[in-house]
Formats: sequence, structure tokens, C-alpha cells
Amino acid sequence: MKRGAAIVTLSPENRMENDLTFIKEAIRQAEIAAGKSEVPVGCVIELGGKIIARSHNQRVAKQSALAHAEIIAINRACKKLGRSFLDEATLYVTLEPCLMCTGAIFQARIKRVVYGAKEPKFGVLGSLMDLSKENRFNHRLEIISGLCEAEISAMMKEFFQKLREQPGTCENQRNLL
Amino acid sequence: MKRGAAIVTLSPENRMENDLTFIKEAIRQAEIAAGKSEVPVGCVIELGGKIIARSHNQRVAKQSALAHAEIIAINRACKKLGRSFLDEATLYVTLEPCLMCTGAIFQARIKRVVYGAKEPKFGVLGSLMDLSKENRFNHRLEIISGLCEAEISAMMKEFFQKLREQPGTCENQRNLL
Repeated sequence: MKRGAAIVTLSPENRMENDLTFIKEAIRQAEIAAGKSEVPVGCVIELGGKIIARSHNQRVAKQSALAHAEIIAINRACKKLGRSFLDEATLYVTLEPCLMCTGAIFQARIKRVVYGAKEPKFGVLGSLMDLSKENRFNHRLEIISGLCEAEISAMMKEFFQKLREQPGTCENQRNLL
Repeated sequence: MKRGAAIVTLSPENRMENDLTFIKEAIRQAEIAAGKSEVPVGCVIELGGKIIARSHNQRVAKQSALAHAEIIAINRACKKLGRSFLDEATLYVTLEPCLMCTGAIFQARIKRVVYGAKEPKFGVLGSLMDLSKENRFNHRLEIISGLCEAEISAMMKEFFQKLREQPGTCENQRNLL
């Protein structure tokens, strides 16, 4: 997408339909992660009705604590647009973002986050806390959660179930979220 | 530094001396940033008495919202050690970390953070809030702040003073923190 391209304004019905389309794209990314034995988290960033970045969790492949799907997607989107701020963008991610990813979302000034399943141990957009409601930050964030939650939870469950069948690897992988 | 290298245990006096040595290295990195017209923030990561990663803010050069000194340093340290976790490391940074960088510090399980000057608008390790005291996260973080604060504050002030002399650029650069 070119810089300065028109932003499409959607009706609420169209927006919901779009949200479903894009979270399914994020699920597709999560499936790619699972196929590589990475914890299945996927993300896409939408701007003006188009996907400008896709990514999946790559903690194992990149041997980096920072290789979460959201971080990779934001970096790709910034590079693609040649700028630091993604003001009118929506970030779709299968799992509730952690502190680092929420901070990155704020840094990139992303407008909306749509996520699927809750993350009770690390999530800070509804679970451990809800930083989108924190007035001390100078950025307002719109959150939609629970989209395709059942499908995403089943995918996570299946991934960890398979890991449990391989003794010794489960705890390490849980730490890779 | 090789994996499994011995961790040096320091007396409180030695630790304070080391902290000063390493924060000065972080200041040197901040000066490199200033020389490239980047907001002067510098960072080093120490493990076992040695610096394993150095970096400075590169928001302008990388055109990315995520190119904070801490993020770049953590990525470099992970790559150098070939692992995601930096358990026994100390991160030295000239300016109080933001939400994203604090999240990254938690993700990498860094043990100690030593920073210089407070960041009243974005800092979350003492200013806007103190996430090191937040019990809901499963990571404990030791914080030392105020090291070389006067020197660092003077450097920041000088940088923004120079920017003010170039009309039109100041507000943009303030946004690059």
C-alpha cells in the first residue's frame, strides 16, 4: 500500500465482517507457527481495508525473547510504509497481547486491536490488567476481543496437548509465549 | 561471551563501581545517537562483568517505532548468547524505559535495570507508574535509578535546545522518544 492512500470508512456491519476476515488471516498465520513447532500465535495489520503486514510467533526460530508475532508485524508494517506511526491501522492477533507488545502497539500509535483468546498469565488488555483503560498513557486504544475465541483456544489446546505427549518439552514451550 | 561462562559475584562496593562504569558506557552510546541526530538514548547489557550488547536509539535511521536502544540491545544479547533469556544480566540505559521496553526486559527475564534520568511522559519504572512493583507479573526486577542523572539530563536538554534552534523539527523529534 502506498503512502497517503485513502482510508476506507466502514459501516459497523462491514467492520464486523472485516474483523472476522482479518482475524481468520491471523489464525492462518498461527497455523503456520504451529507447523514450525512455534507456539501458535498469528498477527496481521490492516490499513485502508488491506493487509499491510502478516507474521507469526518466531521465538524458537529467532532465539529471541522479542520475536512475538505483533512485534514482527509492526516492524514489517513500519518498513513497508517507511514511517514509525501506524495511526489508522488495526492490529489483529489470535492471542491477547503481553506488556511488551501492548507497549509496541502504543509506540506505533495503532488505533484498534482485535484479538481472539484471552491470555490469563501475560495478557494486559483485559486479563492481568487492561492498559487500554489506563489514563496515564497518551494514547487511546480501541479493543475488540473474543473473535473466533473457541477456534483459537482449541488450536492452542491441541498444540500443548501434542507437546505433553513429548516429555520434557512442554514447560520450555510454555515459556516461549 | 560463551554460554555457561561463570557469573561474577560482586560486593556492594564493586557493584556500585561497576554500575558507574557501565552507565558511562551507555552514555557513550547516547552520544553516538546524538551525533546521528537521534534522540540521545544509549544502552548496554552486562553479564558476568562483561558487556554483551551495546546500542543506541535508532528511531529515525530504522524508521521504526520499535527501534529503542533497549530493544536493539536485548535482541543483540539474545543473538550473541543464542538464547531467549538473559536471567543474570543487568541492563543499563540512560533514560527510564517505556512500557514496550519494560515488557521486553520482562520477556528476556533480565534481573536488574540501572537507568539514569527519569522520563516523566513515558517511563513506567518510577514515573508514570512503577511496574517493577507490580505483583501481577511473574518476574521480579531490581531497579537502580538516578545514576549520572545530571550529566544525562544536561545531554538531553542540549539535544532538544539545538532542535529548537531548527524551527519545525522539534515536535517531530520529541515524538521519536
